[in-house]
Amino acid sequence: MPTTMRAAIARTFKAPLTIEEIAIPQPGPGEVLVKIVASGVCHTDLHAIDGDWPVKPTLPLIPGHEGVGHVVALGAGVTDLKEGDSVGIPWLHDACRACEYCETGWETLCERQHNTGYSVNGTYAEYAIASAPFAGRLPDTVDFVTMAPILCAGVTVYKGLKETEAKPGEWVTISGVGGLGHVAVQYAKAMGLHVIALDIGESKLELARSLGADLALDARADNVVAEVQNATGGGAHGVLVTAVSPPAFAQAIACTRRRATVSLVGLPPGDFPTPIFDVVLKRVTVRGSIVGTRRDLAEAIAFAVEGKVKAHVTPRPFDEVNAVLDELRAGKVDGRISLTL
Amino acid sequence: MPTTMRAAIARTFKAPLTIEEIAIPQPGPGEVLVKIVASGVCHTDLHAIDGDWPVKPTLPLIPGHEGVGHVVALGAGVTDLKEGDSVGIPWLHDACRACEYCETGWETLCERQHNTGYSVNGTYAEYAIASAPFAGRLPDTVDFVTMAPILCAGVTVYKGLKETEAKPGEWVTISGVGGLGHVAVQYAKAMGLHVIALDIGESKLELARSLGADLALDARADNVVAEVQNATGGGAHGVLVTAVSPPAFAQAIACTRRRATVSLVGLPPGDFPTPIFDVVLKRVTVRGSIVGTRRDLAEAIAFAVEGKVKAHVTPRPFDEVNAVLDELRAGKVDGRISLTL
Amino acid sequence: MPTTMRAAIARTFKAPLTIEEIAIPQPGPGEVLVKIVASGVCHTDLHAIDGDWPVKPTLPLIPGHEGVGHVVALGAGVTDLKEGDSVGIPWLHDACRACEYCETGWETLCERQHNTGYSVNGTYAEYAIASAPFAGRLPDTVDFVTMAPILCAGVTVYKGLKETEAKPGEWVTISGVGGLGHVAVQYAKAMGLHVIALDIGESKLELARSLGADLALDARADNVVAEVQNATGGGAHGVLVTAVSPPAFAQAIACTRRRATVSLVGLPPGDFPTPIFDVVLKRVTVRGSIVGTRRDLAEAIAFAVEGKVKAHVTPRPFDEVNAVLDELRAGKVDGRISLTL
Amino acid sequence: MPTTMRAAIARTFKAPLTIEEIAIPQPGPGEVLVKIVASGVCHTDLHAIDGDWPVKPTLPLIPGHEGVGHVVALGAGVTDLKEGDSVGIPWLHDACRACEYCETGWETLCERQHNTGYSVNGTYAEYAIASAPFAGRLPDTVDFVTMAPILCAGVTVYKGLKETEAKPGEWVTISGVGGLGHVAVQYAKAMGLHVIALDIGESKLELARSLGADLALDARADNVVAEVQNATGGGAHGVLVTAVSPPAFAQAIACTRRRATVSLVGLPPGDFPTPIFDVVLKRVTVRGSIVGTRRDLAEAIAFAVEGKVKAHVTPRPFDEVNAVLDELRAGKVDGRISLTL
Repeated sequence: MPTTMRAAIARTFKAPLTIEEIAIPQPGPGEVLVKIVASGVCHTDLHAIDGDWPVKPTLPLIPGHEGVGHVVALGAGVTDLKEGDSVGIPWLHDACRACEYCETGWETLCERQHNTGYSVNGTYAEYAIASAPFAGRLPDTVDFVTMAPILCAGVTVYKGLKETEAKPGEWVTISGVGGLGHVAVQYAKAMGLHVIALDIGESKLELARSLGADLALDARADNVVAEVQNATGGGAHGVLVTAVSPPAFAQAIACTRRRATVSLVGLPPGDFPTPIFDVVLKRVTVRGSIVGTRRDLAEAIAFAVEGKVKAHVTPRPFDEVNAVLDELRAGKVDGRISLTL
Repeated sequence: MPTTMRAAIARTFKAPLTIEEIAIPQPGPGEVLVKIVASGVCHTDLHAIDGDWPVKPTLPLIPGHEGVGHVVALGAGVTDLKEGDSVGIPWLHDACRACEYCETGWETLCERQHNTGYSVNGTYAEYAIASAPFAGRLPDTVDFVTMAPILCAGVTVYKGLKETEAKPGEWVTISGVGGLGHVAVQYAKAMGLHVIALDIGESKLELARSLGADLALDARADNVVAEVQNATGGGAHGVLVTAVSPPAFAQAIACTRRRATVSLVGLPPGDFPTPIFDVVLKRVTVRGSIVGTRRDLAEAIAFAVEGKVKAHVTPRPFDEVNAVLDELRAGKVDGRISLTL
Repeated sequence: MPTTMRAAIARTFKAPLTIEEIAIPQPGPGEVLVKIVASGVCHTDLHAIDGDWPVKPTLPLIPGHEGVGHVVALGAGVTDLKEGDSVGIPWLHDACRACEYCETGWETLCERQHNTGYSVNGTYAEYAIASAPFAGRLPDTVDFVTMAPILCAGVTVYKGLKETEAKPGEWVTISGVGGLGHVAVQYAKAMGLHVIALDIGESKLELARSLGADLALDARADNVVAEVQNATGGGAHGVLVTAVSPPAFAQAIACTRRRATVSLVGLPPGDFPTPIFDVVLKRVTVRGSIVGTRRDLAEAIAFAVEGKVKAHVTPRPFDEVNAVLDELRAGKVDGRISLTL
Repeated sequence: MPTTMRAAIARTFKAPLTIEEIAIPQPGPGEVLVKIVASGVCHTDLHAIDGDWPVKPTLPLIPGHEGVGHVVALGAGVTDLKEGDSVGIPWLHDACRACEYCETGWETLCERQHNTGYSVNGTYAEYAIASAPFAGRLPDTVDFVTMAPILCAGVTVYKGLKETEAKPGEWVTISGVGGLGHVAVQYAKAMGLHVIALDIGESKLELARSLGADLALDARADNVVAEVQNATGGGAHGVLVTAVSPPAFAQAIACTRRRATVSLVGLPPGDFPTPIFDVVLKRVTVRGSIVGTRRDLAEAIAFAVEGKVKAHVTPRPFDEVNAVLDELRAGKVDGRISLTL
């Protein structure tokens, strides 16, 4: 066992990460040390690196919260994991397990939570710390590269779809077929839903169709709302907005069936205009959704393990982390990218 | 039985109603004729009279949708009501009873519904038509004057409170202690909820306290959100916004506990800014709610019959209808007004 | 249009039906006349014909409640159907549409409901009356023979599965792979569930596997409960008991995960022993479920129309009705039988 | 701080407890030591002492699981409690906080839970160990004697009422007005429910009425089911059976409205006959309920702290523990008894 590791570190906001050789951290009580095999790159990592959210992380910081690998050391008191186990480290690094949210299966709302790659060091490194109760359990035979994005993108859209309360046989509209949306289409189909995908550009629409979308429409088309209304016989029962922007939000509400739920899973800054008259008369529900609980994660992983959901992932060497982040910033990434270590 | 009746009729938008002597309508199949004893005056009546909603009513029109009185004639096929029965005529005049919303207990969303005093003639008259299945059933001993507003204000806030999904023992914040809000405070208490009332001016806050509010706060105070957060131990589980305005809406969201639901029961024009970051991170649900179903109405009436809810109603002679409407427009009405016939 | 039709009539309980030439009924207000193309044969028909339920039907009676065909005449006031439309006539012939159950989307519990082929004449005839709001809507291109059983067997198990509250990705155990169960396996898979089928005999288990069951076990095996517990990681989230018998019921409860729901869709006489200790400690829910609402029926039909569910149906000439009933009594029917007219 | 304490110990099943002087236990990691002020006596204690459940406790054992008192020492890692805090020790001593039940707010179903006074030592002693996350938080001003039974009787019936899913304004029937039932009547009223209490003997019925029951009926009367049906307009929406016996269970099901839920909170041995025909046709739900989660406990305590629920408690000196147990065995206890230390 080595004593040092390579890690990509943010030392200044909005600057490239520096790849450094640092000490391997030691797992504390209830923690495990994970040797990272692959780490997904998520848009949220940019917010950490750029420090552009209201509450900024403390630097220096190792970003990354879609890390998957093997347990190599156990902290005190860990009994549910053993060396060699395959695990994933999600955004929800840990939570207090004692507040009303933790007690009721909503630890994603815990006010004392830590977030991997944001308030604690993350997975852009050869080794990373996981909290044993919050690590995602993976089968030994997992394909790490494609599994990595399930730890965040997967669980986020899976939970967001659950939060639409759409039931098998009903319709969901998925707004955006990017890193989140292309996974969401697959979860929705596996959940027995009918899917309409909205995005811009034929390649995205083709991708959505190839993943099972019953209909894929160009979000810029004049008649897109009418087409959704027609195809669904009155509007979608649920709408998942993966790329929350004012136009996407307005379109999401316009696409709803009466009594539908719009689930928002992005975290853009700013206020979005909500048309009260429509929301009231149609009894529309607009709901935010943030990642997923341990249970949601276990379920999201199970769908992927069973082969019903598979993220489109491009593996990239760890050393290319800054190039990858630049591509993500520039909107040039299709699907997701996993850094391999 | 006379053949003509006095009615207050809107012949031109934004003009005073004219009180005229016209033929008493005949109940068609499934309808009953009701001799009106009292008719509540609702803010929505102004929207009908002024023609300021996107879809305007066809004139001439008799407004009013909080009419209570006695059945005096039955249309063909009516078996569930008999002459002499006490009934109320609500905003939801009828619905198709065959669409997916009607079939699932959501007839308030029926796209073929008619609305009393808007798309069909209403209750500002000595007689009015009710659809038998949609008339509210009242006990013979009812106090018509105080019951009238339950037909709209009562059921609207009762349903809105249900839609917050707050459970007995939890906290709701009720924004506005006017015609809707002062009834909402009572429903909330009868439902086992803890109540914080928000309004402007000590008299409204005193009223809220006298009706059982656990706390009543001036909505303009700097620390109102902090006080709500403190009193509730982290925010209200539900928020009912009875007077939807951008500041009330922003305050409503700020008052929420994580995972709370904000229920909106007003129908103002325009878009309201929704702070996406807070809505997502706190997993807040924002939901429109429109009047209530037949079952909601029966429940809302039952609370009032039992004495747990009593609207503050000023009876006014029918002839003063235009003066009453002017007072309502000017914001000079405390509680609700019932026109007596 | 002829004036008489052939019908199979029960004139004495427990006796063969007599095939007679009788007057074609006239549709009353709100009703339609349907020319029957096929009529499924359901076990409940035996209860009607044998008069062995607590409330017996009045004879003479035309049994049958899985009739499908074309509308050929409209009663007064029918606007939602037209001549030539393809429809199905379900067990729930009509309901009052005014009671608390009808008002809340639970018309299956209406105390004033009529039941096709039981309290009103059914579909073992060339023509039958349907209540327009309660007739199932079918596409023009429907295969009547395979669709017929969806009208009762299909909607019954679909609703029963919904009533287990099992969610996509979870496990249901389906007890019985007969006329109901073989359809249930398909609905469950289309709803995104994992399925364990229990029955006796390898041919039933093979059938279940061919329809998508993840596991099919012989209900008589010693270790069946242990196998269910192992395969599901602690027990099934839902159990659908299609053939309610004391041993099936006991096995159903033993197969449950903690917090699971057992849904019962049969109507045998007698009391079944419920093990209170297990039910309380495991917080098990035991729930009866009876056919389905209009909305459930529309959903059940939609799954079949889409090809996700297809009943195994043997078409038999209408004249063989008594032979078919004898075979059903003797337990010799695989899948379902549709009488063709 | 002393080093020894008096404790009531079961050394042989079905024998009187022996009061002995033993070492005060030391709190381990995550635990606290509580100086007991009062300990409620629950019927379940008899099952522990008599060893008459399928899984017997290991002797010697200190029974008792309704202990309330002050924290006097903290184990390692406890940060949410401090010395002097008032707490209660419930039946659910601890749970694993890592299984699917613990993760989803159902730790009462955790298969690795420990139970106070059953699988670990309980509160019939001057000092007892509590697991910090599972101890009930009490205000400093609490009346320990009347609060003690809330720790088990209170939370059990409160959760059982929640599990009936009856909503404010609806009706619940509470079967039994003993130690559990007399508290249940108060919770039900505080939850906005209408209450019918069933028991035997006028004193029990009077007690129920004095606690707010809208109706109290002798369970042996011939017409009790008819009276419940009449008073509720078709049956109770929920039924809580606090003393599960075959006749009480049969009566509970007979008292239901269609679509009602019967909640069972007792743990008698044996099987109870369930009338399948009624359960299916009325779509009745029968559900076991076992104590309550930490969150349920916090809510149950909050109702009591607010004065909405107050158990009828007779304080008895700790030394009389064996006499008290004999009285409980003989059915001679009204309300609940708290041993004072």
